Amino acid sequence: MTKGKLWGGRFDQPTDARVADFTASVDVDRRLYRCDIQGSIAHVRMLARAGVLSAAERDAIVDGLQRIEAEIDAGRFVWKRELEDVHSNIEARLVELIGEVGKKMHTARSRNDQVATDLRLYLREGVDRLRAALRALQAALLDVAEREADTLMPGFTHLQVAQPVTFGHHMLAWFEMLARDDARLREARARINVMPLGAAALAGTGFPIDRSYTAELLGFEGVAANSLDAVSDRDFAIEFVGACALLMMHLSRMSEELVLWSSPMFGFVELADAYCTGSSIMPQKKNPDVPELVRGKSAIVQGHLTALLALMKGQPLAYNRDNQEDKRPVFDALDTTLACLEVYAGLVATLAVKRERLAAAAGAGYATATDLADYLVRRGVAFRDAHEIVGRAVRHALASGRDLAALPLEELRTFSDRIGPDVYAQLTPAGSAAARRHPGGTAPEAVRAAVAEARQRLDGSG
Amino acid sequence: MTKGKLWGGRFDQPTDARVADFTASVDVDRRLYRCDIQGSIAHVRMLARAGVLSAAERDAIVDGLQRIEAEIDAGRFVWKRELEDVHSNIEARLVELIGEVGKKMHTARSRNDQVATDLRLYLREGVDRLRAALRALQAALLDVAEREADTLMPGFTHLQVAQPVTFGHHMLAWFEMLARDDARLREARARINVMPLGAAALAGTGFPIDRSYTAELLGFEGVAANSLDAVSDRDFAIEFVGACALLMMHLSRMSEELVLWSSPMFGFVELADAYCTGSSIMPQKKNPDVPELVRGKSAIVQGHLTALLALMKGQPLAYNRDNQEDKRPVFDALDTTLACLEVYAGLVATLAVKRERLAAAAGAGYATATDLADYLVRRGVAFRDAHEIVGRAVRHALASGRDLAALPLEELRTFSDRIGPDVYAQLTPAGSAAARRHPGGTAPEAVRAAVAEARQRLDGSG
Amino acid sequence: MTKGKLWGGRFDQPTDARVADFTASVDVDRRLYRCDIQGSIAHVRMLARAGVLSAAERDAIVDGLQRIEAEIDAGRFVWKRELEDVHSNIEARLVELIGEVGKKMHTARSRNDQVATDLRLYLREGVDRLRAALRALQAALLDVAEREADTLMPGFTHLQVAQPVTFGHHMLAWFEMLARDDARLREARARINVMPLGAAALAGTGFPIDRSYTAELLGFEGVAANSLDAVSDRDFAIEFVGACALLMMHLSRMSEELVLWSSPMFGFVELADAYCTGSSIMPQKKNPDVPELVRGKSAIVQGHLTALLALMKGQPLAYNRDNQEDKRPVFDALDTTLACLEVYAGLVATLAVKRERLAAAAGAGYATATDLADYLVRRGVAFRDAHEIVGRAVRHALASGRDLAALPLEELRTFSDRIGPDVYAQLTPAGSAAARRHPGGTAPEAVRAAVAEARQRLDGSG
Amino acid sequence: MTKGKLWGGRFDQPTDARVADFTASVDVDRRLYRCDIQGSIAHVRMLARAGVLSAAERDAIVDGLQRIEAEIDAGRFVWKRELEDVHSNIEARLVELIGEVGKKMHTARSRNDQVATDLRLYLREGVDRLRAALRALQAALLDVAEREADTLMPGFTHLQVAQPVTFGHHMLAWFEMLARDDARLREARARINVMPLGAAALAGTGFPIDRSYTAELLGFEGVAANSLDAVSDRDFAIEFVGACALLMMHLSRMSEELVLWSSPMFGFVELADAYCTGSSIMPQKKNPDVPELVRGKSAIVQGHLTALLALMKGQPLAYNRDNQEDKRPVFDALDTTLACLEVYAGLVATLAVKRERLAAAAGAGYATATDLADYLVRRGVAFRDAHEIVGRAVRHALASGRDLAALPLEELRTFSDRIGPDVYAQLTPAGSAAARRHPGGTAPEAVRAAVAEARQRLDGSG
Repeated sequence: MTKGKLWGGRFDQPTDARVADFTASVDVDRRLYRCDIQGSIAHVRMLARAGVLSAAERDAIVDGLQRIEAEIDAGRFVWKRELEDVHSNIEARLVELIGEVGKKMHTARSRNDQVATDLRLYLREGVDRLRAALRALQAALLDVAEREADTLMPGFTHLQVAQPVTFGHHMLAWFEMLARDDARLREARARINVMPLGAAALAGTGFPIDRSYTAELLGFEGVAANSLDAVSDRDFAIEFVGACALLMMHLSRMSEELVLWSSPMFGFVELADAYCTGSSIMPQKKNPDVPELVRGKSAIVQGHLTALLALMKGQPLAYNRDNQEDKRPVFDALDTTLACLEVYAGLVATLAVKRERLAAAAGAGYATATDLADYLVRRGVAFRDAHEIVGRAVRHALASGRDLAALPLEELRTFSDRIGPDVYAQLTPAGSAAARRHPGGTAPEAVRAAVAEARQRLDGSG
Repeated sequence: MTKGKLWGGRFDQPTDARVADFTASVDVDRRLYRCDIQGSIAHVRMLARAGVLSAAERDAIVDGLQRIEAEIDAGRFVWKRELEDVHSNIEARLVELIGEVGKKMHTARSRNDQVATDLRLYLREGVDRLRAALRALQAALLDVAEREADTLMPGFTHLQVAQPVTFGHHMLAWFEMLARDDARLREARARINVMPLGAAALAGTGFPIDRSYTAELLGFEGVAANSLDAVSDRDFAIEFVGACALLMMHLSRMSEELVLWSSPMFGFVELADAYCTGSSIMPQKKNPDVPELVRGKSAIVQGHLTALLALMKGQPLAYNRDNQEDKRPVFDALDTTLACLEVYAGLVATLAVKRERLAAAAGAGYATATDLADYLVRRGVAFRDAHEIVGRAVRHALASGRDLAALPLEELRTFSDRIGPDVYAQLTPAGSAAARRHPGGTAPEAVRAAVAEARQRLDGSG
Repeated sequence: MTKGKLWGGRFDQPTDARVADFTASVDVDRRLYRCDIQGSIAHVRMLARAGVLSAAERDAIVDGLQRIEAEIDAGRFVWKRELEDVHSNIEARLVELIGEVGKKMHTARSRNDQVATDLRLYLREGVDRLRAALRALQAALLDVAEREADTLMPGFTHLQVAQPVTFGHHMLAWFEMLARDDARLREARARINVMPLGAAALAGTGFPIDRSYTAELLGFEGVAANSLDAVSDRDFAIEFVGACALLMMHLSRMSEELVLWSSPMFGFVELADAYCTGSSIMPQKKNPDVPELVRGKSAIVQGHLTALLALMKGQPLAYNRDNQEDKRPVFDALDTTLACLEVYAGLVATLAVKRERLAAAAGAGYATATDLADYLVRRGVAFRDAHEIVGRAVRHALASGRDLAALPLEELRTFSDRIGPDVYAQLTPAGSAAARRHPGGTAPEAVRAAVAEARQRLDGSG
Repeated sequence: MTKGKLWGGRFDQPTDARVADFTASVDVDRRLYRCDIQGSIAHVRMLARAGVLSAAERDAIVDGLQRIEAEIDAGRFVWKRELEDVHSNIEARLVELIGEVGKKMHTARSRNDQVATDLRLYLREGVDRLRAALRALQAALLDVAEREADTLMPGFTHLQVAQPVTFGHHMLAWFEMLARDDARLREARARINVMPLGAAALAGTGFPIDRSYTAELLGFEGVAANSLDAVSDRDFAIEFVGACALLMMHLSRMSEELVLWSSPMFGFVELADAYCTGSSIMPQKKNPDVPELVRGKSAIVQGHLTALLALMKGQPLAYNRDNQEDKRPVFDALDTTLACLEVYAGLVATLAVKRERLAAAAGAGYATATDLADYLVRRGVAFRDAHEIVGRAVRHALASGRDLAALPLEELRTFSDRIGPDVYAQLTPAGSAAARRHPGGTAPEAVRAAVAEARQRLDGSG
């Protein structure tokens, strides 16, 4: 018999000490303790209501569990690795504190449904924390977008100057990415918030349980419809980590741009000193460490998603011990994503935007060539021909190192006689941007409208 | 100038032939042709309504596009790799067919917003096809579940016999996995079904477009709120492949069980000959190839998800050519998942369930030990003590190679005097299963209720 | 100016406290301290030899570093997160201990080449530890292979009974997988064991350094040939984790088989109690937790590989802060793989092989059908025809529920008149296995020869 | 019985047509045909030598196989999907061509060892092709490195200007990355080049085969030591794809830099027109499509590695049909990596380096601040103090918008009186670079020496 274990009766030999270390999860899963206790309290309340426990037994157990929670909160609880996991540590302490009645807590339950319940409760709160941090970052972006609605900058495709855009418009692109993340997290939450309890080990239980009542006590929106699935399902964890991986991918794109824009080759923004570090050898360096780390951390969260999908692939039902390995990737995805969101909210709010440098860059690189083509279209040239005409004009201008707006009218007209003196108004960055004023366009007025609309959405999505 | 290209005006030197091959995407993206034409037709209708094109121009272009679609449908269209992609091939053919007016089609548009629109239209339909195939498989599972609601089998955890379950209950676990996939696909569809058109290259356009009208014509539920985001966003592709990867992971678990159950060591089911192949060397073999291939293909789709996340990581806005690489993983995830679902619907419907072998296995391996513990709990023993008592009884029974039900009452009572002659009814698989009759439990009556409820959900989710 | 930092001179504002936490790596990289000190000692010895430091300065620094190492070993060192990383913590303590001269240590060096050196030293030792654990497991497998050289069991393909094999032969298959891992680790070690020091931040240094001498002191086999590459390269980390991922994949396959074989449906082996745990609810359970966890952990290491490749993808030279994120996956891959190897060596050595059950299974399922086909080939039937004949015979035997060896000669001869009474000797598992006696075959004598040859290889690969 | 299949004898029902499509691999594996025929010829030669086939039978089969190879080469061979795979298609055609004797070819062999042999032969050649393309790219890099050994440019860390480097030095960093890839491919080749034949289905064969002779005929360096392992092992494929993924990661880093350097914000290089494409809407655009596609394709190959590791995880021995899915990722990794190497060799050779722009950038951004610190160290200041002093000087210079070299001596001396008039020689990019002349440093003379050394290595590694 194996002493102190929840399952020792059937065994002749004790667990090898190295194996006990290898299999123990308490170092990782102890952070579930509040959820574990919350779940146990609801479980015993339900058992009492169903007549499986007496009211006195229920009260003793609930009281014991609350004392244990206080002990852990206060750092006075002694975690024992030989007791394997958070569940067994708490149950063992319960029996120490309240005696024999504590042994009744695990009636009509298994660690299989218990740990799935704990993890779902934990992630439900995790999603809520993530979404709050996400929305704080979104709000910071809207403030910058509004402030920089008129700030011109070059828009890039292929990292080549494409067309002028406004800095505020670019911030709104970041906002929209995050808005999709928020929607995904909200939907994932609904699938997280389903209660496995009552599945017991895998088949349900013969005790007269009332799963709806337990779910109500715990705030679950639904009850898992099949006990085998309830203990073997880790979709909710994968979906959560998948949503984090997408979110972090978005942050990695923002990071890439912040790193580029902070480079002296761009010089578009300057991060606050508080968000940078220096070099141990090069005294002049001010490095965009935060964006670089965030970009790096996005790779880590991608790895977690790979791990979880590989973990579940090919597992037969119902529960297998492989699943114990789900916790580290899930917890780290949560911690990492939350930390990145929080640090980015501050970074964005303190970002210095270098308007003059941006304006200068917006005016270079033939950014308004498309506007010239559109001008020709409005004068009756087919778009494909207009594109061809302007392409030749750009080639000509390049050869002499001048911008399009620097070509005299007569020179421009050698490419098309439809060009008139009004063309030069089209060739300024401000004119180019202002023309794109439809919903979703880069014009300052469109940006201001989009900010207003986004603020409403953000307020409504809480 | 580079001949025949949509963009040759600015270039001095032609593209290297090897580079043209390297960069061309038409071999892959030509399958988007219907969506491309559908999108172009809506675009020119909108341009005409906005006064950018005349009615006659619109009609000429629409007619030309319809003729091209017919040509492609009929296999008469000549795809040219030197024309790079599906868009340019169709536009070039349009000019051939209808002359100069065809050059006006691309007004107020770019390939950047065009390809994003095409891919979204394609995936919208792809989701619908996947969901139909998914629901056909779910319906097949419900039929088997109902038919085998009373069929006892051993339930496993850790691949050890745990407790008796019913075969129908196990089929419902598979059903529930797939039900989550259906919900995820439905939600992904809403984020797919948003229109990028109007974003043009990245900044919007100066033409007086009406994006809502185009969206209405194309059945989009919304319009992308930011032009930079609209052309750079591939979340919808990642989310789609992520949903496929989860779905395929579920199929891999079903596959693992079908492979196990088909092994003579289990002998629980027999796949129809039509779903198996043999060996080139071992004449006796009948191999569960279909489940093995499905399990293998789940790994491929996991790889596609990794690829897409890595693809988008760290990309600056707006469009970069990297994104061209999104199509192969997306298309293959769709094709693979669809094929697996379709073949599985037939496989499940023709599965032979070996009831006698299952029943025999359900009665072995101390599957009802938990029931003995629960029996003791109902006689006042604390669960943790009952567990200990039964553990010792199992150890005793193991030593003499007997099952619990084979121990005489007197021998059982040496472990606890609470045990009475009524205990043996608890120790049969049928008794064990029948007791678990709460919602989600394995009892035949619970399974039948769950099938009825699932049929309703399935009918309602179309 | 930012106090206490190695780089504060250029900064106006202090680092935000949350940002300091976010960017600090000391919680993770402190485990490099021995390598860091070892590297610093070699560096200052070289500087002294080159005349950059005096002998007295060298001795003071070396002495200080050795005192710091002793402090850390003894748990008396106070790590400060505000000092960012292991390097700065040690340098700051050095200046505390020995005063101004400590500020000279970092001459001709940067943290960029320093951390790369530390990590390479750490992994060099990690590879050696892994290989030792790997070989211990290989040795345990050889012992079992030798002991079970005559033990017959069914060999499976597609988890269908294919042909009889010997248990020893199966153990040798596991051995061969691991032998490839050993070779990969040995080769990875050579690419790990190259010294970046001297690259300084990215470009080398103007001080008259002697890189060969430092490399000699540190036992490096080579010196990085390019300074930009030296500080940006993380191939060695990826290759190391890749080798771990392959190794863990092998352990996952062994695990899958151990889980299957421990299932009562197979009953081929029994794990020692010391390597299993029980159930909190089902008193009869004895679960193969260790193999399940190992199988699960293989997914985690796969995730680490994904993370590292995504981390490095698309990084411009030379060093970027993203790289700080390399450590957690690398350290965890090492820890995890090492722990799994160690626990498996014990598990294999204590594995109980159930020979009777294996022998019974080897005799069932038409495992010797191929032998019947081969028998016909030796009597002049073309192999493809022989395969066809035996296939029909198996179908006939299946229909009446008999094994091939149970068919009377006259019945067998209805399928081919080449069959004579000597056929029955071919149809026993022992006869089948014994015939496969070429190198690599499953015959007991081939297994014994393979064990002897493997022992020699193992002894020679240290 | 299932007609035309290699294994139909045992089956009652034919394969479902959709299942036949689902399971067929011939569309993918037909590209192995040359290796398949080469392997079969060696196999029958060995069988004849061992007396299993007569000389006449051998000659008939060899002749038939050679005719089939010619048919396939000429595009005249009719592939049939209902014959499943390349092996069965060829065997069926052989029997058509030479009659009954063709049915003897598959003696003492299985498709399990056959396909593993084919794939190894294919990848052996694939590695050789990859290495040739790799070395061509390396040679192109050395040419540029030599030509640009004196070209100054800013070296970056964190994308901030760090220290001046030479363009040739940067090319050598790329060279070194690829040199490691070459070494990994060479080592992977040795593990690829091991022969599975003789393993038959899984256990070896009772025929008197001579595996060494077959291996000799096929140029294999070794014979797989264990038959179970031989048919189940896919390490060689994973290792190959792993080496490709690392190589592609390197190309992605080169791509990132080429994209950055081609951006007008950097303007460091210009890609030849032949390696770029334009925009369908923006006439001025010249996009670095090739580097972007290469960067994108690196993500695809990472996905293939994920897929293969997930594919093999947890598979029991020996062969499972899952393995059929190995081919697409392997073939695509080979094709993709080869195409990227080939296109890059041309791109690098035609790259225009903008020396003036580089020189100007190298002189900005305080790139020589480290040199000033080192100057102080040589005048007796401890490095850590020197770093601090220079940091303050940079802060002062930044405030007035001047470079360090623009500060008058008196102003510089306010930070340290050790500064003398000789300091200005240290503050030029050329002086900074020239000082780093140790092996691996960036000085022009070190670069030229490194090129010479690298040419020797390259010549010797063929």
